[in-house]
Amino acid sequence: MLTFEVLASEGLARRGRLGLRHGVVETPVFMPVGTYGSVKGVLPSSLEAMGAEIILGNTFHLWLRPGTDVIARFAGLHRFEGWTRPILTDSGGFQVWSLGANAKVSELGVAFQSPVNGDKLLLTPEVSMQIQRVLDSDIAMQFDECTAYETLGRITGEAEACRSMEMSLRWAARSRAEFARLENPNALFGIVQGGMFETLREESVAALTELDLPGYAIGGVSVGEPKAEMQRIVAHTPHRLPAGKPRYLMGVGTPEDLIDGVAAGVDMFDCVMPTRNARNGHLFTRFGDLRIRNARYKTDEQPIDPTCACPTCARFSRAYLHHLDRCGEMLAPMLASVHNLHFYVALMRDIRDALETGTFAAFATAFCADRSRGI
Amino acid sequence: MLTFEVLASEGLARRGRLGLRHGVVETPVFMPVGTYGSVKGVLPSSLEAMGAEIILGNTFHLWLRPGTDVIARFAGLHRFEGWTRPILTDSGGFQVWSLGANAKVSELGVAFQSPVNGDKLLLTPEVSMQIQRVLDSDIAMQFDECTAYETLGRITGEAEACRSMEMSLRWAARSRAEFARLENPNALFGIVQGGMFETLREESVAALTELDLPGYAIGGVSVGEPKAEMQRIVAHTPHRLPAGKPRYLMGVGTPEDLIDGVAAGVDMFDCVMPTRNARNGHLFTRFGDLRIRNARYKTDEQPIDPTCACPTCARFSRAYLHHLDRCGEMLAPMLASVHNLHFYVALMRDIRDALETGTFAAFATAFCADRSRGI
Repeated sequence: MLTFEVLASEGLARRGRLGLRHGVVETPVFMPVGTYGSVKGVLPSSLEAMGAEIILGNTFHLWLRPGTDVIARFAGLHRFEGWTRPILTDSGGFQVWSLGANAKVSELGVAFQSPVNGDKLLLTPEVSMQIQRVLDSDIAMQFDECTAYETLGRITGEAEACRSMEMSLRWAARSRAEFARLENPNALFGIVQGGMFETLREESVAALTELDLPGYAIGGVSVGEPKAEMQRIVAHTPHRLPAGKPRYLMGVGTPEDLIDGVAAGVDMFDCVMPTRNARNGHLFTRFGDLRIRNARYKTDEQPIDPTCACPTCARFSRAYLHHLDRCGEMLAPMLASVHNLHFYVALMRDIRDALETGTFAAFATAFCADRSRGI
Repeated sequence: MLTFEVLASEGLARRGRLGLRHGVVETPVFMPVGTYGSVKGVLPSSLEAMGAEIILGNTFHLWLRPGTDVIARFAGLHRFEGWTRPILTDSGGFQVWSLGANAKVSELGVAFQSPVNGDKLLLTPEVSMQIQRVLDSDIAMQFDECTAYETLGRITGEAEACRSMEMSLRWAARSRAEFARLENPNALFGIVQGGMFETLREESVAALTELDLPGYAIGGVSVGEPKAEMQRIVAHTPHRLPAGKPRYLMGVGTPEDLIDGVAAGVDMFDCVMPTRNARNGHLFTRFGDLRIRNARYKTDEQPIDPTCACPTCARFSRAYLHHLDRCGEMLAPMLASVHNLHFYVALMRDIRDALETGTFAAFATAFCADRSRGI
């Protein structure tokens, strides 16, 4: 089940509303990543309070731990992880791809050894759909092969990207068939591949559109390519996807990347950056990024971002965060993760507000100018 | 500033109310430990929500990091750590004592090398009072020497315990004088020492009572002695302290120890056990303790403790906690710490309720029977 309506638009950018089995998601939206069924260091109640409407789970990780037998007892990921709002799960394709030489790709799927216990495993479009059926995520992703930007220093050529993209298309059809056979009541998204080649991306878009899936993602970006390459693909592909369906840019990115994505017509984003950076003391603010480990913050009585309304900024100073980080206190990544996620969620709210009033272009310019001003 | 009234009593047990500069504390009370200005893994908002009315800070740790210069800029520990309710700080005596051979004790104080940067430092009653003045804690503790139960396998004899106790008494007088000289508007507690010797404990009580301090603690227990030895001292000392003043049993203990302490006339407790055990997957429940790492919990859909009203038990299963722990997810110690602290805080609330209705003895019997029943 999925409904989607575009409520307003400005240029290619859209303000939309996504209806899923577990609730409504206002778009453009940023989705925090909960790999193992937990957004690292953040209580679900904190995610709710900041206004996160949908989170991610990783099929590959949850398949290995705790395993589908455990999650099946809870009738899906929602009850298992105590999250009642929508969940999107990836297909596992990106994770097995990340195993590199330890994974063997064939037309059938990807064979690999479990990094947890060494078991020999085979992930196929069918198996991915079967796992995601158990997870009962609101949005399941097709099993795909993420085309590498480069392998051992050699940039992927067009012929290889084409072969990979075409296999992902065949895997999309197999995913769709298995998703239907399993009578999954949720929604399946296709994933556009094609590497850094616009013509391949267009072929992928055309073929996936034929499959008439309820939503589409742009995959194969944010995989190590230069920023300009990513920007070229993000500017190229989204608006070529069906206008009436949600568009999801996978694994992206910085706050500025989100602005670019929205401007190009993207509705959904996910990225580990806010939580991972938080754990490394890298904090996002309206006026640029802040490294809390820097000695200059030792006595700084200001909140991380004086313009921020998050619970961390409401209560704690940079000096306190600096101290907690230095002492290795768990509260440091906890408070930083809440702040960074809040920054992303609030940015998307601001973007939606701007789109509703037709002021997105002005907002984007001001936001990026503020960000580059520096702290 | 400190007020204390005994609202009700049953045997030696007391239901009291403690008025401090930053608020009122209902006693008997358990105080979560926030060594470095943070209760490990727990948001201050979670502590407030569970009803924690007072927390601890460690003078020794905060002196080394972030240092008094930083905390002075925030006019004390409250604003630095974002906690508006009362705070008690220890004197640093126990921590320098814990350094063992790396600390050199003399009548003046304790000389040691900073474990953080190797600096040669000297902690004296006067320095401890000066640091605690900067921390501006509601309750400051006298600088004392914690008498060891044993040293290199040799149990401390009476003569040595006596010398140590008498030095702590002289340090109490010096602490009191310096506390007054600094015009500290908060309250200073004395600490009873005397090792495992009742006569020495009585001498310590008598001499400290002469100093007419606003409250008294029982130190030198929970330092490695057999349980029966601790119980002997806990049964002996509290009711010999002035009836109109609060009594604090330092560093104790298990839920059963708290029951014993209250029965013996103790009003205040602190212990790292709930948070430290939580990080090791050791969870407290009404029907005994639970090791979440045990494979039997892999598919257990129940909350940690079905009788518990904490946010962890309201939302998450044992299976989910088991999974998070196995995956090394930060959310595991976060959820477990909230549960364990809530268990302690709720136990003290139940104890206070029982004392108000004169049913503490019956409550204590039923609680300990439930606890020994097993899960």
